Amino acid sequence: MFKPENHGLSPEFRLTKFSTLRVYNEQQHPQQQLGDKETKDDKSKEGVGIGLDSSVIALRDELFLVQSVDFFYPLIDDPFALGRIALANVVSDVYAVGATEIDQIKLIVSAPTEFTEKERNVIVPMVMDGFLAAAKECKAPVHIGSIAENPWCIIGGAATAVCHRSELIMPYNAQVGDAIVLTKPLGTQLATNAYIWMNERSDNWTRLQERFSVADVEETYRIALESMCRLNLTGATLMRKYNAHAATDVTGFGLYGHAENLAKYQKADVDFHIDKLPIIKNVREMAELLGRSAKLLAGKAVETSGGLLICLPSGDATSFCEEYRNSTSHPAWVIGSVKEGKRSAQMNLNLEYIDVD
Amino acid sequence: MFKPENHGLSPEFRLTKFSTLRVYNEQQHPQQQLGDKETKDDKSKEGVGIGLDSSVIALRDELFLVQSVDFFYPLIDDPFALGRIALANVVSDVYAVGATEIDQIKLIVSAPTEFTEKERNVIVPMVMDGFLAAAKECKAPVHIGSIAENPWCIIGGAATAVCHRSELIMPYNAQVGDAIVLTKPLGTQLATNAYIWMNERSDNWTRLQERFSVADVEETYRIALESMCRLNLTGATLMRKYNAHAATDVTGFGLYGHAENLAKYQKADVDFHIDKLPIIKNVREMAELLGRSAKLLAGKAVETSGGLLICLPSGDATSFCEEYRNSTSHPAWVIGSVKEGKRSAQMNLNLEYIDVD
Repeated sequence: MFKPENHGLSPEFRLTKFSTLRVYNEQQHPQQQLGDKETKDDKSKEGVGIGLDSSVIALRDELFLVQSVDFFYPLIDDPFALGRIALANVVSDVYAVGATEIDQIKLIVSAPTEFTEKERNVIVPMVMDGFLAAAKECKAPVHIGSIAENPWCIIGGAATAVCHRSELIMPYNAQVGDAIVLTKPLGTQLATNAYIWMNERSDNWTRLQERFSVADVEETYRIALESMCRLNLTGATLMRKYNAHAATDVTGFGLYGHAENLAKYQKADVDFHIDKLPIIKNVREMAELLGRSAKLLAGKAVETSGGLLICLPSGDATSFCEEYRNSTSHPAWVIGSVKEGKRSAQMNLNLEYIDVD
Repeated sequence: MFKPENHGLSPEFRLTKFSTLRVYNEQQHPQQQLGDKETKDDKSKEGVGIGLDSSVIALRDELFLVQSVDFFYPLIDDPFALGRIALANVVSDVYAVGATEIDQIKLIVSAPTEFTEKERNVIVPMVMDGFLAAAKECKAPVHIGSIAENPWCIIGGAATAVCHRSELIMPYNAQVGDAIVLTKPLGTQLATNAYIWMNERSDNWTRLQERFSVADVEETYRIALESMCRLNLTGATLMRKYNAHAATDVTGFGLYGHAENLAKYQKADVDFHIDKLPIIKNVREMAELLGRSAKLLAGKAVETSGGLLICLPSGDATSFCEEYRNSTSHPAWVIGSVKEGKRSAQMNLNLEYIDVD
């Protein structure tokens, strides 16, 4: 756990204060508008761009350029963990098309103008260390393309992979009968906010205290943190092994939003039916206590560095989930199926909720 | 010329107000710390990264990934021109290594949080239009990877080219006897600031009025604008035709700083001797009036979207400059030569100044 005073900073230092977006304007999480907007590619080359996370562009000799750019503002106060999450978040878009070897990552990070020199010298290197540590895990070299100064703390980057057609899983081949698998639980936003509210002793914390202890909130936060830091690399590798037909990663639009985006993009006349929502332990009850259940239970809660949502042959789904658990020590779930339809996502009226710890 | 009132905005609207960096803190132009910082590439692959503008990474089959990330805050009030300059600025780093075919550009742009809805709806699309128009000129597809909201207006992006070894001019082969060519004049910062000071009727404008008319300042601004908008594509193409040995583009560190960076990187024991400084018309006298000559005349003035600084065989230099003028209607200049030395840049004690109109 990050303690500012252990680094010579004021115990009141909170990285999450260096963007007003989280605190004052929760309805407009920046990621809802980030990374997922794409203009039409005016080259008439084969590729992917519109409405999905990565852009995929044909180069030459069956090679493709896969690239994503993504940013956010601090959603947690731990700078090292923030760096790790930022890395996991930006590479996730590339992994979602099955590209497992990333050739380069550009790190983009700003020191807030209001940082003291001390704060800048402590915090920025810690964020970068977290980013670099996670980059090492995905074996990608990192170069700095930094925004030097900015009022808010920006952290993110650009991830690039050049790969052969055979290494890619284009995200438009879902088939009727496919299973839909999710590799991380939902609820990261509330799980991290609850932890901040507790540390701030805010009104929301007062309400949460009716049913939750400090230990509960800390446990919930830890589950979210582990999930956000976990790379989607294993998921991408297994996608290829288990013949996935289409995938996306779950971030700012929430599970439902990303499922809708992916469904729209399919070649076949299919719908994505979602039957189960795996949610981080305690988050569902927290949402209820705070009167914020609707969005979460509709699969519309904003996620950061969420899991892969994968359509793959139903015969391969169990093996995928088993091998995912063996490799990562964390579960993946079959949460729905692909049926005939009109390229939309449907939430089952009797959704089943899975508590994830 | 951009008139905010023609777009339904207040006549007082000034895009350059949406970063305090230019106004209050001229000594710390963000670009001085941008794009040029590179971490060590921990893969032991052939490539370029440290201290230069683009990173160049070996892929497979003699292919290389060339990539640059660059940003700035508004330095002029015209949103369309700002977009064009941002594009020219980000692709310039890729052109500097001779890569003339850019495969993809990611646009990064933020709408300041303090923009009104109207301002956002007018200004952001104009910036994007300028960016896209310039991207068309370099035949590169653009995808959006936007920062949705930020206190300051950020504009920039990431440019990527995948090219064969034979298409690249690695920036470390300067030879004793090479000529040093520059393709754009210096002085963009003062030229654009003078125009803003005039419109603001600031104290600096009062001083400039001793010797300059409105028409003079407008002409100076127009020369700077044309220069910053001009792509370094022609320069890159001619670099390849005329056997260039090393090149960089001139941006935040100024001519001298970039010459030093490039010199440090050479394989041979060489120095770069600079004999001439081409400077935008009126800028030298403006600097003198304002007591700001020292930096400019030392080649240390910050430039935005500056020209290419190229080492090439002296026998090819005249042809390069002739063909550059024929293609672009603008001059390039032989400004120095490569001599034996210790990998540094030297300014001639009797520098010659060229007024560029």
